[in-house]
Amino acid sequence: MKKRVITIGREFGSGGTTIGKKVAQELGMEFYNRDIIKNIVKETGLREKYVEHYAEFAPSADQRFAFSFVDLEDEESSPLKRMWVARNKIIRQFAEEKPCVIVGSCADYILRDREDCLNVFLYADEKTKEERIREIYGEVLLREKNRVHEMDVKRSLNYKYFTGRDWGKAQNYDLALNRGSLGIEKCVELIVRAAQ
Amino acid sequence: MKKRVITIGREFGSGGTTIGKKVAQELGMEFYNRDIIKNIVKETGLREKYVEHYAEFAPSADQRFAFSFVDLEDEESSPLKRMWVARNKIIRQFAEEKPCVIVGSCADYILRDREDCLNVFLYADEKTKEERIREIYGEVLLREKNRVHEMDVKRSLNYKYFTGRDWGKAQNYDLALNRGSLGIEKCVELIVRAAQ
Repeated sequence: MKKRVITIGREFGSGGTTIGKKVAQELGMEFYNRDIIKNIVKETGLREKYVEHYAEFAPSADQRFAFSFVDLEDEESSPLKRMWVARNKIIRQFAEEKPCVIVGSCADYILRDREDCLNVFLYADEKTKEERIREIYGEVLLREKNRVHEMDVKRSLNYKYFTGRDWGKAQNYDLALNRGSLGIEKCVELIVRAAQ
Repeated sequence: MKKRVITIGREFGSGGTTIGKKVAQELGMEFYNRDIIKNIVKETGLREKYVEHYAEFAPSADQRFAFSFVDLEDEESSPLKRMWVARNKIIRQFAEEKPCVIVGSCADYILRDREDCLNVFLYADEKTKEERIREIYGEVLLREKNRVHEMDVKRSLNYKYFTGRDWGKAQNYDLALNRGSLGIEKCVELIVRAAQ
């Protein structure tokens, strides 16, 4: 079955944006990544800085406990929940409007009822991720090595909190690719093939 | 880089043998699966029934504790260790002799120092695995549903015991494929592409 939507979950520094863009180009699809933040800002009326900061927010144990009493679908409640409701709405709209590639944002979970979705996860060894991060963000971020690792921990907790699933567990995806050993071009080729 | 050896780890019922054979055929490679058991029998002089029974043996907590004091490389010791040493030797020989596809047997770990190895993991949803097991082994095995799940638990413990790694964790492979959603033909195509 030809896929209409490709979602890409990815470890920090594994080249998700680059690979996603190339896949979208080859298949003539729209590409969404940062656009989701902008749309959440529009949708919720929250400040951009706030949305950016909390987009990959991972609630602490206390916060998780507090949140467990409230309904995530209730738009009247906390900004975090308004962001989640907006994120759901935006990603479903993207998928409805045009064939597209969506990077991050728990899109695989949000679109879990669509059968025309190909869900991909990208990962890489530490060395590859460090090189990539040095290339894009420079030495400063790389020197704070823990931050690199923290980004993945944060993504993993954020995903778990909102979806109840384990981030990066192969069984949750159609295709999981090691961008370190396969390289960017091969990853693009395999995702395109899998979607056709 | 063109790959000389393809190792396939797989959940029970995810079609590893079928997919592995087709990949080998398309790439003109040797295919090894059950052959490994036969070769361990020859190599160790142990009874075939014994080797079959213990090939995917997962030691209990007590046994793991006892084994932690002995050197896995010491061929003089227990039959389990003689089997592991033989398995290493046989799989390294296979990889050395001819380009090949090897299913199971911790081959990805045993050949971890070879850069010309493509390591694949196959998994599937419960429904797909059940259908596959009904097809191959019939209703009897399927009715004992727990046994199906137990096979994966056993493989996972066996892998962990001998390699120290987590079986089926995407990050340990180059490519992890959902045979349930992708189907057999697409899995074959993607593995062939990845190896070329």
